[in-house]
Amino acid sequence: MSPEARTTLDDQVAALRAFRDERDWSRFHTPKDLACAISVEAAELLDAFRWSGPDTGVAGREDKVREEFADVMIYCLYLADAIGEDPAALIADKLALNEGRYPADKSRGSAAKYTEL
Amino acid sequence: MSPEARTTLDDQVAALRAFRDERDWSRFHTPKDLACAISVEAAELLDAFRWSGPDTGVAGREDKVREEFADVMIYCLYLADAIGEDPAALIADKLALNEGRYPADKSRGSAAKYTEL
Amino acid sequence: MSPEARTTLDDQVAALRAFRDERDWSRFHTPKDLACAISVEAAELLDAFRWSGPDTGVAGREDKVREEFADVMIYCLYLADAIGEDPAALIADKLALNEGRYPADKSRGSAAKYTEL
Amino acid sequence: MSPEARTTLDDQVAALRAFRDERDWSRFHTPKDLACAISVEAAELLDAFRWSGPDTGVAGREDKVREEFADVMIYCLYLADAIGEDPAALIADKLALNEGRYPADKSRGSAAKYTEL
Repeated sequence: MSPEARTTLDDQVAALRAFRDERDWSRFHTPKDLACAISVEAAELLDAFRWSGPDTGVAGREDKVREEFADVMIYCLYLADAIGEDPAALIADKLALNEGRYPADKSRGSAAKYTEL
Repeated sequence: MSPEARTTLDDQVAALRAFRDERDWSRFHTPKDLACAISVEAAELLDAFRWSGPDTGVAGREDKVREEFADVMIYCLYLADAIGEDPAALIADKLALNEGRYPADKSRGSAAKYTEL
Repeated sequence: MSPEARTTLDDQVAALRAFRDERDWSRFHTPKDLACAISVEAAELLDAFRWSGPDTGVAGREDKVREEFADVMIYCLYLADAIGEDPAALIADKLALNEGRYPADKSRGSAAKYTEL
Repeated sequence: MSPEARTTLDDQVAALRAFRDERDWSRFHTPKDLACAISVEAAELLDAFRWSGPDTGVAGREDKVREEFADVMIYCLYLADAIGEDPAALIADKLALNEGRYPADKSRGSAAKYTEL
């Protein structure tokens, strides 16, 4: 197991907080502007695939994908911090909700939304 | 410390993988379509703030923000899994890159991009 | 009335087609990739407002807004062309639909979605 | 030529303004919130293609694409109106800029960005 693999989200959030606070950036981190930032970074990630046509893979665009992926995650963790939520708990809650919405036997192999199952 | 706080990203990825594989959904999880999904979920998060004007806070929209936040994170973790990357390592790498791009003394209190510092 | 004001969407689409075809770019213009491009350009437009906090105005960011606005519109017009639709007709159809969904007396001064009126 | 084909952007903007003002919605139409709305609608358009894999076409998703396309265009036209710009002029200006950035002989058949030509 790599050292990173044992890192908890809390450890990462602590490092991100230190980075932010050394720069006095929490003044910019309103929930609305963080939501904007997440959308902007998600689009930069998507941009790695622009004009790729039927090629849905990552080959040839790994570096951009890695970097933009991290930006989306980082702003997500800042948003959770700004609103006082535990990101791991929010993920666990949503996964539990999805377990109910998407019974395995009804949704197997189907991309249908739960409202259409 | 809450039990979630001690959860590693690896534990969460394992739960997400089990959920996905019980439904045979990895067939849909191409990097390009996961990047699309992240953008769509990021926009649903942003939608919580639509028409909020100068109100940049989360009050009154906590539930939608929590749920859409989790969706963005979940698809990010599926993307990292689909491309064989450790999400914690990618975040740590990007934070190290940003430490170099944004020296604390030059970027304190400034929202300028590193190319404009 | 300025000359531009009398330009029809058809005239603009004709100019955009000429630009595209001189560069043999229609090969890239699949509906899916154009939808990706519209999302990416919309995010670049949104990026003009990143970290603006309660300031919801355009002052100080006019140039970026003008340019990114045009990019969104241009890719929209290319998408309409790629799928063989008249953009003006689609807008008129949606406006007619919204007239029914949002009766003026029920929706006046309210940002509620039609499903919640 | 269909009647819509002869409609100018000005005619459409006039109809959109009447719809907006009958509902007293200009109070919501700040540039920042319109930019948010454009991103959200662009993502709803993109959502029509989620999980489509290598299928980059519009077949089977025409209705959703038509409707979400119109939403993106409508909010774009509201943004141009909110900032006092002529949308046709902005498109023409950007097309002229792109003519210079992408010389036909250098960019033919290439998806490279102008900074990489």
